Amino acid sequence: MLQSKLFTKTRKESPKDEVSKNAQLLIRAGFVHKEMAGVYSYLPLGLLVYKKIEQIIRNEMNAVHGQEILMSSFSPKENWLKTDRWNTMDDLYKVSDASKREVALSPTHEEMVVPIAKEYASSYKDFPFSVYQFQNKFRMEMRAKSGIMRGREFIMKDMYSFHKDEEDMNAYYETVKESYTRIFDTCGIGDKTFVTFALGGSFSKYSHEFQTITDAGEDLIYISKDKNIAINKEALNDETLAELDVKREDLIEEKAVEVGNIFKLKTKFSEPFELNYKDENGTVGEIIMGCYGIGLSRLMGTIVEVCSDENGIVWPKSVSPFQVHLISVGNDQAVLDATKLVYDQLQKNNIEVLWDDRDTRPGQKFADSDLIGLPTRVVVSNKTIEEKKLEVKDRKTGDIKHLSIDELISDLK
Amino acid sequence: MLQSKLFTKTRKESPKDEVSKNAQLLIRAGFVHKEMAGVYSYLPLGLLVYKKIEQIIRNEMNAVHGQEILMSSFSPKENWLKTDRWNTMDDLYKVSDASKREVALSPTHEEMVVPIAKEYASSYKDFPFSVYQFQNKFRMEMRAKSGIMRGREFIMKDMYSFHKDEEDMNAYYETVKESYTRIFDTCGIGDKTFVTFALGGSFSKYSHEFQTITDAGEDLIYISKDKNIAINKEALNDETLAELDVKREDLIEEKAVEVGNIFKLKTKFSEPFELNYKDENGTVGEIIMGCYGIGLSRLMGTIVEVCSDENGIVWPKSVSPFQVHLISVGNDQAVLDATKLVYDQLQKNNIEVLWDDRDTRPGQKFADSDLIGLPTRVVVSNKTIEEKKLEVKDRKTGDIKHLSIDELISDLK
Repeated sequence: MLQSKLFTKTRKESPKDEVSKNAQLLIRAGFVHKEMAGVYSYLPLGLLVYKKIEQIIRNEMNAVHGQEILMSSFSPKENWLKTDRWNTMDDLYKVSDASKREVALSPTHEEMVVPIAKEYASSYKDFPFSVYQFQNKFRMEMRAKSGIMRGREFIMKDMYSFHKDEEDMNAYYETVKESYTRIFDTCGIGDKTFVTFALGGSFSKYSHEFQTITDAGEDLIYISKDKNIAINKEALNDETLAELDVKREDLIEEKAVEVGNIFKLKTKFSEPFELNYKDENGTVGEIIMGCYGIGLSRLMGTIVEVCSDENGIVWPKSVSPFQVHLISVGNDQAVLDATKLVYDQLQKNNIEVLWDDRDTRPGQKFADSDLIGLPTRVVVSNKTIEEKKLEVKDRKTGDIKHLSIDELISDLK
Repeated sequence: MLQSKLFTKTRKESPKDEVSKNAQLLIRAGFVHKEMAGVYSYLPLGLLVYKKIEQIIRNEMNAVHGQEILMSSFSPKENWLKTDRWNTMDDLYKVSDASKREVALSPTHEEMVVPIAKEYASSYKDFPFSVYQFQNKFRMEMRAKSGIMRGREFIMKDMYSFHKDEEDMNAYYETVKESYTRIFDTCGIGDKTFVTFALGGSFSKYSHEFQTITDAGEDLIYISKDKNIAINKEALNDETLAELDVKREDLIEEKAVEVGNIFKLKTKFSEPFELNYKDENGTVGEIIMGCYGIGLSRLMGTIVEVCSDENGIVWPKSVSPFQVHLISVGNDQAVLDATKLVYDQLQKNNIEVLWDDRDTRPGQKFADSDLIGLPTRVVVSNKTIEEKKLEVKDRKTGDIKHLSIDELISDLK
């Protein structure tokens, strides 16, 4: 893409009303636009990152046989009365129409997915299965100061699985846990993300959070480097320590942000909706459920918190909006022609490239390039033309190499 | 995909509370799930169709240099006060949080996109550009009886263009009009869809609707077959007739549904937000806007209204969830093995195939296949194995051919 055609621009100053690094950088670099506290729109560069993350997660959910659906945001009040969450969930937005009929604006979709499952599945032959979606959620957050990491409106991947017995649910739960580990690895924050034991609520002993270490985190976790796991603050007690066979003194306290969680719901939601199955003999059994969430906006914000430096964002390759930031220095025809050749070659090789073709001074282009944070910066100037080599800089390490176009392409592939 | 793994099922009876054909068929075939009047969730097959339609539209919007973004649903009240629509728009949902602060749940995004444009564009060099999104809209519909064609919550593609003068806007408007014609052609309803002259409101003489003829339509249009255009009821007057050079007596009245519309907004929204530009001399000029909408849920519903018969849906190839419905008759190993070979060959050739591998009687499989409506049905049975030919039925014409797998593949490509 030509940067001169991109309608967004970078800005030098951080927005005054943003304290979080992720929002500051994403706004300065033109990835998101703030609408109000906790509500952001995604601009072209931001949407490209969002779609990369979405596809990484979709591939993993399909690999564990999740079936993709898309549920509505409006959700019938009667469903929430049935689970007793209409009056007990503090962050539930309620919307009424002119006739004063109320509906919920879904903060999560158990109240919708269980009736859908009940519509289609009733025999032992219909189970197990799992469904997932990428969907907007609405939560009445009173403190929304963490940029895109804690929103009043945010995009989430939520998956729900349905099983005939606990054993089957437990096995699937472990499969998804591994799949989550792969997702955060692929997104470039695997080394800072820990499977974290959390309280499971009244229906199961533990749930698991995926917590990423960052100073921007609002949670405290206690890491066992030996076991490569962590325990969150609420679950940190003698019983947990004994069960996990870790010693309190070996744990390291860190601030962290929860980028995903998996939860054994058991019969918590199948019971109120009477989601059952009939076995071979006509005997009725209860359906056992699991649920598995990843907040995509939060994940994107966390990647920025973890992968950035004083000059801007440092996108991991897997989620970067483009792989190469191609910069033409000066406006002589020779430079523009040489840059065009590189641009065409990269595109022909399916390497995503943003060409800064703006009529702007080089210093500004370099600063913008660092701020936007694509993994590889390639400079074309009269000097590089003379040397018959491109100047190639790695955004993460700062290393500079001088490569021919063929060497660059083979490097990038 | 294996049909036995699909969690949805077909149902024989139409839902009692649905009068529209699109909702009846889509629910019976397991494409959508009704949550309440005017609110539907998309199940796996329905989401596949939705994504096909989305990609057709995205390709055309990218071809006219639209930049894809994703704006939030929550929209600041002050923006709606500024355009005077907070108190005048009947179908606007308002949501308040615990502190009684109100926000709008966007029914359209002019109030959001203009402030975004203003944030980044102010010089004559920044224009023209256009942005678009696929996004959930919310409208307080009092009568929502048309299935997915008129929703309280529905997905829309909305594009907004920004220009320095009317001439540029008019030229772009014509480009998008052609792009819309291609979209409806590609979606398989081009021959029933007419560019329809509608009133333009206070800011321009005409707007244009894309109206598709169907008995399920809630609009009346008047078609000039000669000119291949139509006029809607509100715009049908002597002045319009004279300007378009058509005679009232040559017009044919038809019921139709509006699948898209394009509108010259001129300065209607740039003015309240003071979206201006400075020209080469520093003189300030007003920005001229156009907007371009397509309701994707409505388009999907319209395709079903137009492309269906007494046995079910007849998907156009371009939007069908799969190209081939592969049906194995009986459960002998020979049939299953032969079907598996066809299934693998089709997939290897990138032909999307749904294999009805269920342990169900053939009559049920054939009825379900007609209801679900994939373009090509391929049957494998002991008889076809003996004849060394597959039975291939065209869902639209009902024609049956007997083909080898190679002939089938070359037919489908």
